[in-house]
Amino acid sequence: MVHLIHHSSSPQSRKMRLIMAEKKMSFALKEEEPWKLSENTRQINPAEELPILIFDGNVICGNNAITEYLEESNSQYKLLPENLKDRAEVRRIMDWFDTKFYNEVYKYIVAEKIIKRFRLKEAPNSRILKAGLNNLKYHMEYIEYLADKNNYLVGNEITLADLTAAAHLSIIDYLGDIDWDEYKNAKLWYAKIKSRPSFRKILKDNIRGIPPSSHYSNLDF
Amino acid sequence: MVHLIHHSSSPQSRKMRLIMAEKKMSFALKEEEPWKLSENTRQINPAEELPILIFDGNVICGNNAITEYLEESNSQYKLLPENLKDRAEVRRIMDWFDTKFYNEVYKYIVAEKIIKRFRLKEAPNSRILKAGLNNLKYHMEYIEYLADKNNYLVGNEITLADLTAAAHLSIIDYLGDIDWDEYKNAKLWYAKIKSRPSFRKILKDNIRGIPPSSHYSNLDF
Repeated sequence: MVHLIHHSSSPQSRKMRLIMAEKKMSFALKEEEPWKLSENTRQINPAEELPILIFDGNVICGNNAITEYLEESNSQYKLLPENLKDRAEVRRIMDWFDTKFYNEVYKYIVAEKIIKRFRLKEAPNSRILKAGLNNLKYHMEYIEYLADKNNYLVGNEITLADLTAAAHLSIIDYLGDIDWDEYKNAKLWYAKIKSRPSFRKILKDNIRGIPPSSHYSNLDF
Repeated sequence: MVHLIHHSSSPQSRKMRLIMAEKKMSFALKEEEPWKLSENTRQINPAEELPILIFDGNVICGNNAITEYLEESNSQYKLLPENLKDRAEVRRIMDWFDTKFYNEVYKYIVAEKIIKRFRLKEAPNSRILKAGLNNLKYHMEYIEYLADKNNYLVGNEITLADLTAAAHLSIIDYLGDIDWDEYKNAKLWYAKIKSRPSFRKILKDNIRGIPPSSHYSNLDF
């Protein structure tokens, strides 16, 4: 049996859930709060980060390590194109969200609204939040641009780029911070990803003490 | 012809130079300072980050995108093992250095000593530096542990894990901040990587206005 130690506030955890669901893998989730990982979890992942993939006594940690492992070990449902340059473009967009979006949006908005609240019992700093919301606009415009060129972020098939971007956006959307009416193409693209069966469980997520935005689970938003 | 837009203070740039040299590729370097990228560079990489790989009118950006592209497009000299779990372990260590080491060491030490100096014309903040040096100890102990288990960081052949780790460490070593005598196994491992032909050009690097530490280019340090 495959297990994923995850948390709903972790975009990388959401990404792996989407990848495994797209690949029709059966897996069980085990939730841990990133701000108080268990002793066992800290031992199996010295980086002290989520998610962690566990199967048959094997442990795989690390965002790209898990992503690439899931792709390499399951060739029936491919999420990377065949062409090397297209693969590079998919990975460029993954890098964009996992690094740039994470540093410029997640670390401002999610870290302030969720992590800080539970770890430090403090209210979010409104100046940091405002900076994060400002950065978010720039990223939404970039998605708007990418979604205008193709059906999906890279080409005409769903790839790891879409799942990574949607995983990151879905947490910000849970908090109600995306003004979708400003970004028509991005909204059409997100609606397409959101309506996939792989997204269903993500839309039922609930972070203790923080209810989702009113439109979070609506396919027509 | 293959070009890499790079800078010596960028660990990801050093990593790509090592990978291409290990794969015996011929390539030309074009240096740009990350704190004042050219208009052209900002246009070809909207993430405004180095390195950037250019060949035959193609542009590849993004740390993992370039790394995986170089591996996939050149199968003669492999830097990822065949076995899927070993590949995951190599990528876990890449993730460790590119994310954790980068956030906990590079962003304290290199960003303070080099980036801040040139971008803001300010002296480093000694409290931030001290925190970075403290974090560095923890990472050196982890390398010490990894290097004690195997000849290389993963198994008995050189992989992307070694090149990534050595790329990151080499900048800290340029600044003279590693106390090698404290870490016997790590030192033996680094000496082995440092003496490879692929490392020669890295050891001749010079960052304008910041001379390398006295032992930086010595193979016997």
